Amino acid sequence: MNSLTHIDSDGKLRMVDVTEKGDTLREAEARGVIGMQSSTLALILENRAKKGNVLEAARLAGIMAAKRTSDIIPLCHPLSLTSVEVEFSPDEEKSEIEITARARLTGKTGVEMEALTAVSAAALTIYDMVKAADKTMVISDIRLMKKSGGRSGAYIRAE
Amino acid sequence: MNSLTHIDSDGKLRMVDVTEKGDTLREAEARGVIGMQSSTLALILENRAKKGNVLEAARLAGIMAAKRTSDIIPLCHPLSLTSVEVEFSPDEEKSEIEITARARLTGKTGVEMEALTAVSAAALTIYDMVKAADKTMVISDIRLMKKSGGRSGAYIRAE
Amino acid sequence: MNSLTHIDSDGKLRMVDVTEKGDTLREAEARGVIGMQSSTLALILENRAKKGNVLEAARLAGIMAAKRTSDIIPLCHPLSLTSVEVEFSPDEEKSEIEITARARLTGKTGVEMEALTAVSAAALTIYDMVKAADKTMVISDIRLMKKSGGRSGAYIRAE
Amino acid sequence: MNSLTHIDSDGKLRMVDVTEKGDTLREAEARGVIGMQSSTLALILENRAKKGNVLEAARLAGIMAAKRTSDIIPLCHPLSLTSVEVEFSPDEEKSEIEITARARLTGKTGVEMEALTAVSAAALTIYDMVKAADKTMVISDIRLMKKSGGRSGAYIRAE
Amino acid sequence: MNSLTHIDSDGKLRMVDVTEKGDTLREAEARGVIGMQSSTLALILENRAKKGNVLEAARLAGIMAAKRTSDIIPLCHPLSLTSVEVEFSPDEEKSEIEITARARLTGKTGVEMEALTAVSAAALTIYDMVKAADKTMVISDIRLMKKSGGRSGAYIRAE
Amino acid sequence: MNSLTHIDSDGKLRMVDVTEKGDTLREAEARGVIGMQSSTLALILENRAKKGNVLEAARLAGIMAAKRTSDIIPLCHPLSLTSVEVEFSPDEEKSEIEITARARLTGKTGVEMEALTAVSAAALTIYDMVKAADKTMVISDIRLMKKSGGRSGAYIRAE
Repeated sequence: MNSLTHIDSDGKLRMVDVTEKGDTLREAEARGVIGMQSSTLALILENRAKKGNVLEAARLAGIMAAKRTSDIIPLCHPLSLTSVEVEFSPDEEKSEIEITARARLTGKTGVEMEALTAVSAAALTIYDMVKAADKTMVISDIRLMKKSGGRSGAYIRAE
Repeated sequence: MNSLTHIDSDGKLRMVDVTEKGDTLREAEARGVIGMQSSTLALILENRAKKGNVLEAARLAGIMAAKRTSDIIPLCHPLSLTSVEVEFSPDEEKSEIEITARARLTGKTGVEMEALTAVSAAALTIYDMVKAADKTMVISDIRLMKKSGGRSGAYIRAE
Repeated sequence: MNSLTHIDSDGKLRMVDVTEKGDTLREAEARGVIGMQSSTLALILENRAKKGNVLEAARLAGIMAAKRTSDIIPLCHPLSLTSVEVEFSPDEEKSEIEITARARLTGKTGVEMEALTAVSAAALTIYDMVKAADKTMVISDIRLMKKSGGRSGAYIRAE
Repeated sequence: MNSLTHIDSDGKLRMVDVTEKGDTLREAEARGVIGMQSSTLALILENRAKKGNVLEAARLAGIMAAKRTSDIIPLCHPLSLTSVEVEFSPDEEKSEIEITARARLTGKTGVEMEALTAVSAAALTIYDMVKAADKTMVISDIRLMKKSGGRSGAYIRAE
Repeated sequence: MNSLTHIDSDGKLRMVDVTEKGDTLREAEARGVIGMQSSTLALILENRAKKGNVLEAARLAGIMAAKRTSDIIPLCHPLSLTSVEVEFSPDEEKSEIEITARARLTGKTGVEMEALTAVSAAALTIYDMVKAADKTMVISDIRLMKKSGGRSGAYIRAE
Repeated sequence: MNSLTHIDSDGKLRMVDVTEKGDTLREAEARGVIGMQSSTLALILENRAKKGNVLEAARLAGIMAAKRTSDIIPLCHPLSLTSVEVEFSPDEEKSEIEITARARLTGKTGVEMEALTAVSAAALTIYDMVKAADKTMVISDIRLMKKSGGRSGAYIRAE
């Protein structure tokens, strides 16, 4: 059985044909973390206390990247997202920021990649804005938390 | 001391002004891993044995994303990359694929973000192509391995 | 009451969630002017008499920018416009060109930003093509003239 | 009678207004060839026997370009393609590779331009990857083979 | 004399050929205003007092648009900007926000269009974020304040 | 000997590393034709006599596509073109339009792909604008006419 949906039976790359699929409500939530030195996290949080710039810039970057997921991921279908949210949960004990993104639309295909792309772009933007202070940052645990809608049904990550 | 170079002294977002900087050779290497079920890795490797499609598609996605880093990361300078490479090291024991990206150019600013963006887009593309078989995949340890060039000098990650 | 729809109750940026909204016919008309020296306007009109190049180039730029509004305006929803028109009314007495753009589609959210973006890009393109002759040009009065469709109903500018 | 649908009755450029059109299944197939020296074709086929890289890269480029047709062709409507396929038929006798692309969606306007753009981008990508070995390559016979859906009905090329 | 540099002597559109020009330091400053109801300005300023979201989002949009000016304005040269700044000066008496953008690089052509595009995109983003509260906003007085560098020398607007 | 410069010795795709190459003046000229029914050509020429819209739109599309070649062709280096020209020679006897594009810059790598991409996008745009009248059009003979600059020296097509 071929489980690589983007490869046809002859081994060629393809965009999965979803033309015949029905429009259903699709939702996905993805998550990831960016770990850093505790002084770096303090810098971001102090900045946030003032104007929230680093995290708000990362949020915008995540939302904008979600909208252009099909430009970045070669075999993703172009989608007209109707909702994207990006949230940050700083954890001073673990010295990291958790990033959560949610995407929604009514359409023929799921929005997991949009949520995962939002998390990735938000994490990279945090990295970019703080890298002069800390080159040791690590982006990790980018994963799908849950999705719903479509023929394959709901998925909820077991953690 | 303000170590957030993308925030000016009034707290406003900015692109760092590199107009006066000299052109030097800049290189950066970034790395990350995508972990998956062992059957998923087997699927990718079997596909690779045939035509190498999943990993070659991910490689192209990484190279193309590196070229448009300044479109994805809001405060990155637009750069004319002269080299990008993306490599994959599957590890069957750990059931993961390590992704390494290297970027180079002669210019006024470093190419860390380009290398990190290439790793992220390559990982997301692998995820996209295999997600029908495995929704549990996790993208982790995206980090800068080394960089050279520019006033701040070389950095080599201690691991 | 929070009238900033792109800011949630915690003060975070967001794309407004329009997933649940119905598809209705949405139309918007925006307008703006670019003022210039009378010799500059004469130059454009003389050129138009010949081949219409400056204004046709500006028209194309406006149409193309409208199509990528969600790439330019961070929190705009990606939309599949089904109509965009850009028109020019030169006024030799006022020594200016009035630019009018109209956008249409059947969808979940309005197209004001698409019409306003078309006007702005058309004005900037005129500026670009004539700037060697006249650096004093001013782009003004970019505004929404009317919109219809959607829950909030029709709006017609009182002038 | 004005058969130039992208020019209105006053001679101005426009995007055709398809707002009122119904959503129907639209399909289009386009084809083209890239001719080359026989040693160049041998090089590509030998490479394909190993890893298929040149043609798989060209396939991805074709699929990605189809998705952004409305960015490349000024008066094309933005569309959310639900299927794109790109296929290659090398012909050693004619010393050429035939490229076929098919696009599909349910929508208000046809997908001919998407199929033709996919063929063009795939051909250009083959050219790019082989140009160090052969600058004499020629891209030819890019044409619409068939289309269906919409008011104007089906078209099948007579060859 | 033909002062339309983007039109050649046969009346055809063209990108001005700057290949032979020398690299000099180029700077440009542009300005514009967005006028609104006083309650709308109060809403933005109150929001700014908290987190600065509307104006920081507009600032990012302006910076990002400046980077892609050559994608939006058809005959602009692609440039690798080394600095972009966007500033806001709210004026409660006039009930408007003044937007100032500055762009810099060392290159063969000026950066006026980049500064003007930044102002325009920032203004449109403010409009987008506040439009639910106020549809009467007007974007005006987008103009070049000064430029320096290049053969044509410095320009300072007389106001 | 491996003449596929975009494939490394292990068979992996890559962007050719041009970091160490010197900056030299690079020029390229490409050409192609779009053939059509004679009534279709008459339609375009009549339109041109009036306002030149079809061909001017195609010219702009060609110039804009040249600027974004590295976005469309996966392994092309991002370049800052300093000149692009697109010209049309209608031939009523052959019932076709010949398209010629020239690109220039001083840099580390050639501009053949930019010239070829300009020809392709211009041809597709003509196709798009006239397709309601004539679905039989064929785009052919897209080829490099000459190039100069760089280590490999000049090439002039033998025809």
